[in-house]
Amino acid sequence: MDRNDMKVIDVDVHNSLKSAHDLVPYLPEPWKSRVASSGLGLPGHGYHNPIGVNRQDCRPPSGGPAASDPNFLTEDLLVPFHIECAILTGDLMGVSTIHDPDYGAALASAYNDYVAEHWLANRPQFRGSILVSAHDPLLAAREIDRMAEHPGMVGVIMGSGQRALLGQRQFHPIYEAAARHGLPVAIHPGTEGAGGTMAPTPSGYPTRYLEWHTSLSQNYMAHLISLICDGVFEKFPTLKFVMLEGGIAWLPHLMWRLDKNYKGLRSTVPWLKRMPSEYIRDHCLFSTQPIEEPDDPKQLLAIFDMIDAENILLFSSDYPHWDNDMPTEILKKLRPEARQKIYYDNAKQLYNL
Amino acid sequence: MDRNDMKVIDVDVHNSLKSAHDLVPYLPEPWKSRVASSGLGLPGHGYHNPIGVNRQDCRPPSGGPAASDPNFLTEDLLVPFHIECAILTGDLMGVSTIHDPDYGAALASAYNDYVAEHWLANRPQFRGSILVSAHDPLLAAREIDRMAEHPGMVGVIMGSGQRALLGQRQFHPIYEAAARHGLPVAIHPGTEGAGGTMAPTPSGYPTRYLEWHTSLSQNYMAHLISLICDGVFEKFPTLKFVMLEGGIAWLPHLMWRLDKNYKGLRSTVPWLKRMPSEYIRDHCLFSTQPIEEPDDPKQLLAIFDMIDAENILLFSSDYPHWDNDMPTEILKKLRPEARQKIYYDNAKQLYNL
Repeated sequence: MDRNDMKVIDVDVHNSLKSAHDLVPYLPEPWKSRVASSGLGLPGHGYHNPIGVNRQDCRPPSGGPAASDPNFLTEDLLVPFHIECAILTGDLMGVSTIHDPDYGAALASAYNDYVAEHWLANRPQFRGSILVSAHDPLLAAREIDRMAEHPGMVGVIMGSGQRALLGQRQFHPIYEAAARHGLPVAIHPGTEGAGGTMAPTPSGYPTRYLEWHTSLSQNYMAHLISLICDGVFEKFPTLKFVMLEGGIAWLPHLMWRLDKNYKGLRSTVPWLKRMPSEYIRDHCLFSTQPIEEPDDPKQLLAIFDMIDAENILLFSSDYPHWDNDMPTEILKKLRPEARQKIYYDNAKQLYNL
Repeated sequence: MDRNDMKVIDVDVHNSLKSAHDLVPYLPEPWKSRVASSGLGLPGHGYHNPIGVNRQDCRPPSGGPAASDPNFLTEDLLVPFHIECAILTGDLMGVSTIHDPDYGAALASAYNDYVAEHWLANRPQFRGSILVSAHDPLLAAREIDRMAEHPGMVGVIMGSGQRALLGQRQFHPIYEAAARHGLPVAIHPGTEGAGGTMAPTPSGYPTRYLEWHTSLSQNYMAHLISLICDGVFEKFPTLKFVMLEGGIAWLPHLMWRLDKNYKGLRSTVPWLKRMPSEYIRDHCLFSTQPIEEPDDPKQLLAIFDMIDAENILLFSSDYPHWDNDMPTEILKKLRPEARQKIYYDNAKQLYNL
């Protein structure tokens, strides 16, 4: 893999519950009885991936689903790929899509307690993300306050599938809480079109998983435009935002189009003090997986140049998902200092590791 | 402008009605009385552009709104910019957003008759687009059949703001009719979020015009993915699709992401015989305005290389809209043969001029 020469931090590793029953001890009533009798009941998006969302070869010998055993995950991913630290992103981003905001918030809290006890205690190779449901942003902020002092929790995470664009005002209490504790906020796709979220594209529901998955980047573009224009980074100048698994090759387009429109329409967003693309470069980071793969790798390297990739990219494997990749071939073409930043330094600084 | 040396076809010129009353003579009842008493009543998207949608300096001395006078439009745009032919795209794309499909179809028909009589007769410098409402695709196909033999009508146009993704089956009668008559189908943005359309982004309604306008490209990406994956270009192998005013710098991202996902998920779209990006290159064309403008023009030229720009771009001014531009500076950097294709040859072949 040609990474023996450098340390790695993997910012998107999907630890999994063994089963819904793992959360029962951490839930208050009436949710405890509901989950014990009926499972989590997360809304589905209705799309089917024939390959399966998880790689088949990631199942732990101890039983249970892929990435549900911290020891096997360490052996299967961290050791062979020289990953010093994995930022756990879990598989419950769907809490934001639940119709009842109290239930979504209770599930997130139970999940955070479970991760703290079963994954973070005495395992310095793992760091956790405080899961929140953005449906009730005040409850989300309270959850951040509750978990922020846990030494293993290094960030906040929520699904990108939402009822509204994440720059809008109702979400600001989440960013205020995260900024107060010096925690970056990450979003992760996969819940688009489920439960209370909007349709996955600006013209409704794609026909199949292929179209749905390819379109996920559009939601990232929409959230990013919203975060910039609604002034989130002027209001919370220390906040960092992590866009996990949304792709990167669309960034030149978005920066150029947004900057151009801003020049004409800046009177409508007078709180912005710099070009939109400057906020992106200073406040937003993007994970590498799934990286776009042109036939000619030089084309992706040209995109890297346009977006100052070495300062905004974070290495991620997305283990154990179906399309997890190891973008070593493309990263090998960068100069060593740039590779070191993407594999390690950027994440170490961001998550204060 | 450095284009004195070549002929130009402008594929996106927004001719305008002088007023809603222009359509009254062409409408049947009950729509005739409705428009005569209450105007068109097109649903609005609710966003405000403080600059105004139309440039202030385009108003004809004869009165009426910008681009409502064929003679002044010829003098103001075609003569000074050496435009041999302007493809008229109008300003009634909103017919697709109307709740009553009969009213939308009736307005489109009246508009087409009006354009044929007032713009196309004896004016070879203008060519028309058959406007359709996609709300009732069978009525749209009937309208294409009705107007296709008019010698001045060279294509079909509809708004990109729709109730569903344009590759889905309900829209295929439109493509069948267009292909039968050898007419390309164009879409144009601006109605996203109005009337019966979906929210303009995958997470709902942007806050302001700036975010709304910047996000319009997302809808183009969604439609393009849908057109490819739902097999429109296998089903109608002669069909050409024109993506007006949606931007171009996002194309490398979309081609690479879609091709990569197709490799893993091709079993779900067995009717596709080639890589998705090959369908885009062979069947889709993109207009230049609004062109993305990086600080370093070499970056846009690198994007041009990635998308085979000289064979898929069509020059457009978007006259008289607020952000209409003349991308002469960037096109000047191309070799003369490439410029000739983008300014003229591609459109001449596409529209069979």
